[in-house]
Amino acid sequence: MAIHTFKAESVLKSGLSVENKSGKFTIIADEPPSMRGTHTGMNPVEMLLCALGACLCITARFFARSQQIDLQDFRVELEGDLDPAGFIKGTQGVHPGFQQIRTTIYIKAKAPEEKINQFVEFVKKRCPVGDTLLQGVPIVENFVVQCIGIDKEPA
Amino acid sequence: MAIHTFKAESVLKSGLSVENKSGKFTIIADEPPSMRGTHTGMNPVEMLLCALGACLCITARFFARSQQIDLQDFRVELEGDLDPAGFIKGTQGVHPGFQQIRTTIYIKAKAPEEKINQFVEFVKKRCPVGDTLLQGVPIVENFVVQCIGIDKEPA
Repeated sequence: MAIHTFKAESVLKSGLSVENKSGKFTIIADEPPSMRGTHTGMNPVEMLLCALGACLCITARFFARSQQIDLQDFRVELEGDLDPAGFIKGTQGVHPGFQQIRTTIYIKAKAPEEKINQFVEFVKKRCPVGDTLLQGVPIVENFVVQCIGIDKEPA
Repeated sequence: MAIHTFKAESVLKSGLSVENKSGKFTIIADEPPSMRGTHTGMNPVEMLLCALGACLCITARFFARSQQIDLQDFRVELEGDLDPAGFIKGTQGVHPGFQQIRTTIYIKAKAPEEKINQFVEFVKKRCPVGDTLLQGVPIVENFVVQCIGIDKEPA
């Protein structure tokens, strides 16, 4: 199968709010007032948890039938721990990102319990966002700078 | 500073659509018809790209003033490559997750170009979602199984 490239775009709006688009869909990110935001959307690390939870849910539905699971309900609670000193202060040795993510999957299905247990293990391994987070991923970064005004200011 | 725990919840709805909540905010994930979805939202890997783009934008705004950058515009284009064989077929040796993510940051600011370049490097290093994706993160997974009906079926 050919490699597929997924795309998105994020544009900084007023304050800390960000308009994020992929295809025809838009989701807003922001921070609460305690972080100087205006709370018009969840923040990016919460969005990351949602991407993981959504991916586990979709993977479950996608494969339930072929794995002989009559899936009735599937729900994921997610938590992620982060030391704010890494982001806010840039403290040496403290990563700005998540130190650990915890998920609790609630599954209700018509199938023997052992088969459901095996199915959940299958879903965890096959989930693309979970795999990306567990393995880590190289990020190739480019940037285009438009520098304005600074040389035209009076001395 | 104390460790902060962020939370979210994802609930599988009809078909492949998923309702993802964090605090008072909800974002919908789904897949296009080509993946058997009903296209009511972007998919989880696109949501992951949005989380990264949003985090770069918020990090830029959060630190611009203290880094003496008069930020005018900040925008990120994101691409992520994935081999569908890893997810759909479970092909041995093919990861289901992203193999590479590429970002292009467009920044417009009133500051000398060298200072803007340094600022972009600072933003990339300090971004919590970028750090999580680059480093990878341990995921502790629990699950609660509710097994129904299967033993009550007539033999």
